[in-house]
Amino acid sequence: MSSNAVAYARQNQARFVNELKDLLRIPSISTLTEHKADVQRAAEFVAADMKRIGLENIEIIPTSGHPLLYADWLHAPGKPTVLCYAHYDVQPPDPLDEWISPPFEPTERNNNIYARGAVDDKGQLWMQMKAFESLMQAHGGKLPLNLKVIMEGEEEVGGESIAAYIRKEGKKLKADFALVSDTELFAPNLPTLCVGLRGLVYTEIECTGAKTDLHSGMYGGAAPNPLFALIEIISKLKDSKGKITIPGFYQHVKAPTKAELAAWKKLPFKEEHFRKTEVGSKVLTGEPGYSVLYRTWARPTLEVHGMPGGFTAPGAKTVIPAKASAKVSMRMVPNMDPDDIIRKYTKYIKKITPKGVDVKVKILSKGEACVVGTDNHYVKAATEAMHEIFKKDTVFIRSGGSIPIVGDFQNVLKIPTLMMGFGLPDDNLHAPNEKFHIPNFHRGIESIARLFEIVAEQ
Amino acid sequence: MSSNAVAYARQNQARFVNELKDLLRIPSISTLTEHKADVQRAAEFVAADMKRIGLENIEIIPTSGHPLLYADWLHAPGKPTVLCYAHYDVQPPDPLDEWISPPFEPTERNNNIYARGAVDDKGQLWMQMKAFESLMQAHGGKLPLNLKVIMEGEEEVGGESIAAYIRKEGKKLKADFALVSDTELFAPNLPTLCVGLRGLVYTEIECTGAKTDLHSGMYGGAAPNPLFALIEIISKLKDSKGKITIPGFYQHVKAPTKAELAAWKKLPFKEEHFRKTEVGSKVLTGEPGYSVLYRTWARPTLEVHGMPGGFTAPGAKTVIPAKASAKVSMRMVPNMDPDDIIRKYTKYIKKITPKGVDVKVKILSKGEACVVGTDNHYVKAATEAMHEIFKKDTVFIRSGGSIPIVGDFQNVLKIPTLMMGFGLPDDNLHAPNEKFHIPNFHRGIESIARLFEIVAEQ
Repeated sequence: MSSNAVAYARQNQARFVNELKDLLRIPSISTLTEHKADVQRAAEFVAADMKRIGLENIEIIPTSGHPLLYADWLHAPGKPTVLCYAHYDVQPPDPLDEWISPPFEPTERNNNIYARGAVDDKGQLWMQMKAFESLMQAHGGKLPLNLKVIMEGEEEVGGESIAAYIRKEGKKLKADFALVSDTELFAPNLPTLCVGLRGLVYTEIECTGAKTDLHSGMYGGAAPNPLFALIEIISKLKDSKGKITIPGFYQHVKAPTKAELAAWKKLPFKEEHFRKTEVGSKVLTGEPGYSVLYRTWARPTLEVHGMPGGFTAPGAKTVIPAKASAKVSMRMVPNMDPDDIIRKYTKYIKKITPKGVDVKVKILSKGEACVVGTDNHYVKAATEAMHEIFKKDTVFIRSGGSIPIVGDFQNVLKIPTLMMGFGLPDDNLHAPNEKFHIPNFHRGIESIARLFEIVAEQ
Repeated sequence: MSSNAVAYARQNQARFVNELKDLLRIPSISTLTEHKADVQRAAEFVAADMKRIGLENIEIIPTSGHPLLYADWLHAPGKPTVLCYAHYDVQPPDPLDEWISPPFEPTERNNNIYARGAVDDKGQLWMQMKAFESLMQAHGGKLPLNLKVIMEGEEEVGGESIAAYIRKEGKKLKADFALVSDTELFAPNLPTLCVGLRGLVYTEIECTGAKTDLHSGMYGGAAPNPLFALIEIISKLKDSKGKITIPGFYQHVKAPTKAELAAWKKLPFKEEHFRKTEVGSKVLTGEPGYSVLYRTWARPTLEVHGMPGGFTAPGAKTVIPAKASAKVSMRMVPNMDPDDIIRKYTKYIKKITPKGVDVKVKILSKGEACVVGTDNHYVKAATEAMHEIFKKDTVFIRSGGSIPIVGDFQNVLKIPTLMMGFGLPDDNLHAPNEKFHIPNFHRGIESIARLFEIVAEQ
């Protein structure tokens, strides 16, 4: 390897990190309406750098939610076209008091950048941007292949706008393969391609009982309690061993192949180490008879994320709330149809709803699971590029998370996706003290630059 | 009846209401630490009026929580001594957006005063104060009997300080009977004495799982979820019909007498009317085989009031929270021992706690149920006083609520208590749009004034 692009990236490491910090300072929390302008500002920040580094046809595309961002560079006739994806929205930072440094004041400690969005996904978005810049600079103002970029500000809230856009603008987005930078290395220094994702259905069950909040002394024993009704309902959705008890829930589940299961067994993964260093609980939980990797990558799950309603401040208030709700999501594995699951889930909830309360099931987002093929030369180019940077063979893993866009690239655009990400398992995604290991940020830039050069040479 | 005290009260109705409004403007929410100074301010407001109307030995007594307030007037030798109780703290006003007028800007509509604390208990506290004033004015600067007043600012948070004070200052508080003004009329225009109260144990179950909040994609299927664990636990504390399933929970329950049950059946109470006008739910809930009055007055209950933890803002966040908690309270009936219930409750929770999480049960308050006797001449004087004002016979009821002080008066001071209150069943205690019917405020003042005069004549 003697890539000028890699050399340029190495010379500009300090500036690249500083630019990323500026992007991280924008609190682009897509789920909170008061941060709507910040999501727009994050899109504008990225768009401005796209212009500076020489991308063309840059568009900030308004939607009914947060804006999309498109750009391209299409002056490499005869060369393949890559469609790059990342997102500039982030999760809410709460609980705030558990952050060691403030979530929107990026801070370096132990060669990591700590900030909300550091690795999910602004840091990985910026890897792509800096790979584009390094290639442009190393190739005399040109890229070695054709590039289309589509980025969004709604990934953390379901990505409805980009899903609609892909369906509408299939021709505009047409490419030979996609690069999605939103995943992680399986272990430090271990180059990794993610080839499977779980799907997600995120719901809110709203429950109403009395017409107004009531005093539990005067009315306890006669008035329905929506919070207790939700507890009754949710306790019947999953048993104590982690098996989901919604009728027909597992009907279409497709198990991983024997070869894939065998490969997972060879990965450097110790359940006890995972428990201690990542989860930190007394024991791990979940369905008996499945390994942790199987349970988190290839088994569906159901989780409760929060139960708004009633009195939640410190202290005592003896209220029977008039209404309450529960945020409940389900992860799905290949072959499960989100609409089928939503039907079964809603039907079962209606059936088990105790008398005296009304329930309404709201669907906040849905996206199916997907498994991407590994038998194409883009995958080979990616493993070659990462071998140059890491000096190691790539492992193929799945992720328990959900990136609905990958399913859309596969099903709508009919192109394969490389999920080549550079996070680490302990990066605290969606949690306090999210971080990105700075050396991985740089290796990401270099790997993407080399990937494009290798694809272009083929 | 030709009471000068009643005449004075009637001449001063407008001023009495205006003074009450001033007291209601003080947001003395005892459970919220940021309102600590307001509880103090409410005590000072009442103390200043005590001084103005001629009470003596006024003390604002500091405690580890909110201050107590004591005053007396002891210049009626040979006459009985009454101990008056009310409280100047209030419940939190949330949910704020359901108030038609702001909770701390008392507003008159339809002959009611709307404000947090209007009836519970500042309005009823002020009835006592204005009865004292009217008697003083009508009796030439004297009262017809001896008076001790003990008021608190912690009733809504368990009243620990007053409980300790009564145990310590039994001699100082010694009286012939007590008057507690914190209950309601059974129906409009129906004079009522409350002769039974449920006890209360208020708990918070704290549950911890992983060491930090986790992403439900990456960890769902392997990490314990404290919110789901709480759901599992609480779903096993009470069955879908309202029966509490904690082993031994009903062991010591004492049922009402046949005579009492027969009297309840004669009360003007229609379950369907109660459902429609007070609860407003589709059906009423609770243990089959018991009437609504039986269930709410004389059966123990268990309720969930709120479940802090996880993500509760609008929108979607796929978090498995590291910790969550649940506010759970139990109402107890006569003969149940709070400490016995706490032991059984805690033991059972520990037993059914799912693996992977730790639980801690915190007791926020506890107080036993009580039933007071009706065969004393204070009760007869109260029914006579109310007959003069209402022209109707008094009914004897219980309340499902908890006033621990009544148990303390009975068990520690060994004196009978008159629970003579003037709220109405639809006054929205602890809920948005709490109100006090203004004519009942005035009838309360007059009834208390006459009660004291009649007791003094005997």
